[in-house]
Amino acid sequence: MGSQNEIYQLHNPALDNYNLLLQETLFHNANGYIGVRSAFEEGYPEGYQSLRGQYINGFYDMTEMEPPERLFGLIDEKQVMLNVRDTQSVKLFIDDEEFSLFTGTVRSYRRWVDTAEGVTGRQVHWISPLGKEVEITIIRMASFTQLPLFTIDYQVKLLNQPAVVMFQSGHNGMVLNHYDPLEPSRAEQVLYLNPAESELMGDASYITSITTESGLSVCTAVVNFLEGEEQRQIFAGNYEITDQISRTGEVQETVRLIKYAVFCDSIRYGNCREAAALEMDNARLLPIEELYRRQADFMADYWDRCLVEIEGDYDSSLAVRYSMFQLLQAVGKDIYCNVPAKGLSGERDEGHYCWDTEMYIQPFFTVTDPAYTRTLLEFRYRTLSSAIENARLLGHKAGALYPWRTIMGRECSGYFPAGAAQYHINGDIAYSIIAYYLATGDLDFLSCKGAEIIWQTARIWMDAGHYFKGQFHINTVTGPDEYSCLVNNNYYTNLLAQYHLEWAAKLYELLKGTECPAIGRIGLHEEEVAGFREASRAMFLPYDDELKINPQDDSFLSKPRMDLASIHKDDYPLMLSYHPVHLYRHQICKQPDTILAHFILEDGQPEPVMLNSYLYYEKITTHDSSLSSSIFSIMAARLGLCEKALGYFELSAQVDLNDRFRTTIHGINAANLGGIYMAVVYGFGGLRLKESGLHLRPRLPEKWQSYRFKICYQNTRIAVAVEKYRATLTRESGAAVNLYIEGVEYRLEDRLVVSRRRP
Amino acid sequence: MGSQNEIYQLHNPALDNYNLLLQETLFHNANGYIGVRSAFEEGYPEGYQSLRGQYINGFYDMTEMEPPERLFGLIDEKQVMLNVRDTQSVKLFIDDEEFSLFTGTVRSYRRWVDTAEGVTGRQVHWISPLGKEVEITIIRMASFTQLPLFTIDYQVKLLNQPAVVMFQSGHNGMVLNHYDPLEPSRAEQVLYLNPAESELMGDASYITSITTESGLSVCTAVVNFLEGEEQRQIFAGNYEITDQISRTGEVQETVRLIKYAVFCDSIRYGNCREAAALEMDNARLLPIEELYRRQADFMADYWDRCLVEIEGDYDSSLAVRYSMFQLLQAVGKDIYCNVPAKGLSGERDEGHYCWDTEMYIQPFFTVTDPAYTRTLLEFRYRTLSSAIENARLLGHKAGALYPWRTIMGRECSGYFPAGAAQYHINGDIAYSIIAYYLATGDLDFLSCKGAEIIWQTARIWMDAGHYFKGQFHINTVTGPDEYSCLVNNNYYTNLLAQYHLEWAAKLYELLKGTECPAIGRIGLHEEEVAGFREASRAMFLPYDDELKINPQDDSFLSKPRMDLASIHKDDYPLMLSYHPVHLYRHQICKQPDTILAHFILEDGQPEPVMLNSYLYYEKITTHDSSLSSSIFSIMAARLGLCEKALGYFELSAQVDLNDRFRTTIHGINAANLGGIYMAVVYGFGGLRLKESGLHLRPRLPEKWQSYRFKICYQNTRIAVAVEKYRATLTRESGAAVNLYIEGVEYRLEDRLVVSRRRP
Repeated sequence: MGSQNEIYQLHNPALDNYNLLLQETLFHNANGYIGVRSAFEEGYPEGYQSLRGQYINGFYDMTEMEPPERLFGLIDEKQVMLNVRDTQSVKLFIDDEEFSLFTGTVRSYRRWVDTAEGVTGRQVHWISPLGKEVEITIIRMASFTQLPLFTIDYQVKLLNQPAVVMFQSGHNGMVLNHYDPLEPSRAEQVLYLNPAESELMGDASYITSITTESGLSVCTAVVNFLEGEEQRQIFAGNYEITDQISRTGEVQETVRLIKYAVFCDSIRYGNCREAAALEMDNARLLPIEELYRRQADFMADYWDRCLVEIEGDYDSSLAVRYSMFQLLQAVGKDIYCNVPAKGLSGERDEGHYCWDTEMYIQPFFTVTDPAYTRTLLEFRYRTLSSAIENARLLGHKAGALYPWRTIMGRECSGYFPAGAAQYHINGDIAYSIIAYYLATGDLDFLSCKGAEIIWQTARIWMDAGHYFKGQFHINTVTGPDEYSCLVNNNYYTNLLAQYHLEWAAKLYELLKGTECPAIGRIGLHEEEVAGFREASRAMFLPYDDELKINPQDDSFLSKPRMDLASIHKDDYPLMLSYHPVHLYRHQICKQPDTILAHFILEDGQPEPVMLNSYLYYEKITTHDSSLSSSIFSIMAARLGLCEKALGYFELSAQVDLNDRFRTTIHGINAANLGGIYMAVVYGFGGLRLKESGLHLRPRLPEKWQSYRFKICYQNTRIAVAVEKYRATLTRESGAAVNLYIEGVEYRLEDRLVVSRRRP
Repeated sequence: MGSQNEIYQLHNPALDNYNLLLQETLFHNANGYIGVRSAFEEGYPEGYQSLRGQYINGFYDMTEMEPPERLFGLIDEKQVMLNVRDTQSVKLFIDDEEFSLFTGTVRSYRRWVDTAEGVTGRQVHWISPLGKEVEITIIRMASFTQLPLFTIDYQVKLLNQPAVVMFQSGHNGMVLNHYDPLEPSRAEQVLYLNPAESELMGDASYITSITTESGLSVCTAVVNFLEGEEQRQIFAGNYEITDQISRTGEVQETVRLIKYAVFCDSIRYGNCREAAALEMDNARLLPIEELYRRQADFMADYWDRCLVEIEGDYDSSLAVRYSMFQLLQAVGKDIYCNVPAKGLSGERDEGHYCWDTEMYIQPFFTVTDPAYTRTLLEFRYRTLSSAIENARLLGHKAGALYPWRTIMGRECSGYFPAGAAQYHINGDIAYSIIAYYLATGDLDFLSCKGAEIIWQTARIWMDAGHYFKGQFHINTVTGPDEYSCLVNNNYYTNLLAQYHLEWAAKLYELLKGTECPAIGRIGLHEEEVAGFREASRAMFLPYDDELKINPQDDSFLSKPRMDLASIHKDDYPLMLSYHPVHLYRHQICKQPDTILAHFILEDGQPEPVMLNSYLYYEKITTHDSSLSSSIFSIMAARLGLCEKALGYFELSAQVDLNDRFRTTIHGINAANLGGIYMAVVYGFGGLRLKESGLHLRPRLPEKWQSYRFKICYQNTRIAVAVEKYRATLTRESGAAVNLYIEGVEYRLEDRLVVSRRRP
């Protein structure tokens, strides 16, 4: 078991319905392929509503989404992640007394996530109504080394008398998606997977199911293994299989059930039934301890690459580590998927992939474990043809426009003003590819895939934008802030488009003499590239002479402000209390927009303008989005407002662990997890990836004694330690590199100490 | 029967499915309360799709309209006009040979609308397959003097041999609404009325039905009367009653069935079953000829008030008369209803009332038969409380915002950018009340109801707008042109709001010393009125110095134009071929917006600016709306482009009669009917209602020899005749009045001739 700061745990956590739902999310297991919410194996008393769910990343069905007025191009169906199967049910009986936390006496009880071992746990010291005393320890693991595998290791130690210990372990193929009436973009029907075949083979049960519309199938296999098994009986019916196994245990003896479940879908496997059998055999071939060892090795390697530690603020340090663990659980491990907005921890947002991945999550992987970023970008490349189709739907004769929300590549947003109109997603993806290239120098990916995405998406700016009075304007788009929609010259969008077009031209110069196949395939030529260059040069970037800030868009500053002081706290988030027309009519921001532009492209405007903007937008931002506070933290740190930065960072750190938005029961907020990391490394650490190289600008808030983080730049692993008057960089592997600290270029050979004068 | 130019008729009209559907619309009967599409009484052969329908104005059911993303304030149910009952079925048998236009030989055949008699007719000279020759004449009437009554007068003249003539006359309670998959805002389910009770009483059959959601009911009664009836048999079952009646007829004898149907709903009648019985008794008390005489008297009176005649252009003259007849058929006759967008002639647009009434239809009634305008405005007053609720939904703490589409008062638009955001509807209604007041001087209505509407709706401008740099701005609204949505400072909206606020203040001054109850009731006070006045004075009205035009909105002129030349004609209307984001991003107009502002408030800008605007917007307007060409005609006439005006007028005249939009099968385009009238009287006649008085500016297109029209101003009936070099005004009744011709004030005593110098 990991050391104290490697474990997030709750002692005697509350057993009310809300907290149990929250814990289902906080203690869920996932590995980027499968995700299992931490429902109690034994279930809950009547009246409790569990959002019991198991998911496969990228596995979806289609459902209708007919708009009330069917304007051309509006989306009328969407993809929804399915709740695939329930393999987590295990009922426990001690001499016929059924275990439940709601009966008998609970002496002690805790739940934990062990980020070093890569498992979650639940331990209960329980005395049954008839006086049988047991210690129950349940360890759950979604394997990182064998992605289809999920295990439950159920140990029962008899403390005061021998007993017959019996398990009823279920494999249930009849599950529905959960219908949440409060979800604004919920599907109209309750979706479910259709069980097609149920089979017993030796001690393994198999259930194969098919989707209704999307033509996908999945097979789950379950095996229950009880050391010293004495009796076993199998109940099978209606796609629900229950394995009843028991044996007698002596006092102080531990009776242990190991439940293996594997999930194989038709997206990744040609024959998912055969694959499930093979995966199950592979899992059982090794002792469970060996599976645990592999998981721990995997985690050790992971932490070795991305470690962040904060001295003097235990809670924050743990929150960052928890976030990084959840990011690993959420991130797709193959090109068939990405990072759902709620990871694999819940159904809210329907398993959709958004710009969150590129702008909030990839910045973490890109500087720690860039292979993950590459895989995520490969997903975008795989869906490029859908983005091309999507562009046609929006009226563009050339180029690709990525969907705002998607699973398999087609748009899933049912409200285009805050969906399809967010053209900046093209820039976000291009930005992320460039960041990946700057961090890794991976010319192979760029040449084979990345540049093609950048060029195809750049084409959209040329068609959506146009020259007006000598400047390049982009009209009728929506920026990141969804409280202003369909605006002209959104600063974020235009600045990003400028960068995007500049790089599109730059990459053409870089690759035109090489074997890059995309140039010919997409018919890119000098003249078009000259157009990119010229539009980038002539890009109109709104600036207000009076306030000396960048207006969010052409008309933003001419609108009245909302009187935030008069709004009742229950009316937040405002989008649930105000008609969109009312919000759009006011200077009110759901989340950073111009401020985000200042972060990602800090050289786009002088520092005093960024500071003015920051102070201006801060007053009118409600932070109604979980994507907000982390960026405010980063920019506060950037602008020397270090204690403000800490405040926003702490808000971000609480988003899920303290359920600040009251939405975490439906799943973790994946973008914010990346935001928490970014607030430390990009915020206090001041990390930026620029064409000139890696930049750092370390800052230390008063409350912290010091902090350390590890990053990977151009294949060189660097440990950074920031103390009050000193930053120390240590090269852990790879070649010596040049980098910038506070804008000054240094060469990191083995160790570099940069001191700051004491005041 | 009326004279030639009083009858719109088709000789041997086509019998293909499309043309039959079109004729169902063109020859429908309605009286503002009930509407009956002109389906063949005998039905159609298999494979034909009739949109057989009978409607009651304002009679609706509710249906779900859930938006895919449930943002706050979005409408999730709407009202839909129901297809209430089928009473028009009559099968005819001549010695057992069933009559059909698709069997035997049709010697001659015609259909007509007689605008003098107020009836429609169908006449067939038919020879049966076995050689029986008959002349069939069917006259249908929706009574204007007894609104619940619809009659079919079915006459069969035996031409070559005696025969047994048998009718099977139906009364069918099991009808569904028609589901049109091409209707962009169709209901999700097929709606229907639930039959509740079916009853035979004497020779009358009654069917009472109830709606599913809206709690309304309706009773229909049917009586069939055959002179000299020999045999009668009634088949009743499953809410479908068939009366089979026959008698023998001699050669040259006419056998005549009169079918009476009455419709009484629970909106207008406390007990609709009893009311139906009473109405039926009343109808039958009189000989049918007396009913016809009353109808003809009613029509004579109508035409005496609104006559328009064009010499030298028979088709246009007839088209205008046809339009005015349809307007009478469409206009609601009580305060429970209004004018549906398709009149009572079809289900497209779901029987909804829109701004069409105020801006396209009332301008006709206001200057001919202003009592209709008053009743229509009473409907708005009746639904004021719903408009207040609607305003709250949109975030306004005070005031009333009328819904964009409605039946009973609540918003029915499923797409707010081109629905609820069209705030100009408030100004349209205010404008119309002011026009009514200017035309009639009806202070009673103004004091009791009109002013209250004007004040409550004016309050919305104060909340939706705000001061910016000393000027009053109105952001995030949609003007009449739905190809630009959610814009800032739409010229039409701002100009209208300026006028509206000015009048709100003016009416306060007029009424504050009187008994006007609204002032106290709504808490209007001096300070608020001063605010109206100041906002009106400070209203920002976009003007472009370079082009010397009024831009449609703040950003309109900065957008690129669409290359209309490259668009294929099948891609019109553009909203069915282009994503809204694409349209919104371009300078492209579905219909007049700024041009409409120039029409309704011509003193808002100098004439050269209107001309510049006209020429500018004309190039970028697609006329994808039936509300477009008439306004272009009016403004062309206003600006001296008389032949252009004629061209646009002729386009308007063809909208339904030549089905120019290929939508008339689903119902007539009611707004365009008003537009046709306006193009003559407001366009060529140059009629304007201003505070200074009635203005005329008569113009005569080359093609026309002369034209005449009758109007009513301040209770004085005036006949206007326009010839090439002369306009003659004759006072037909009422007191002498002052009025303006070409801006010069005249007094009309009995007759006034204003001549124009020959060139």
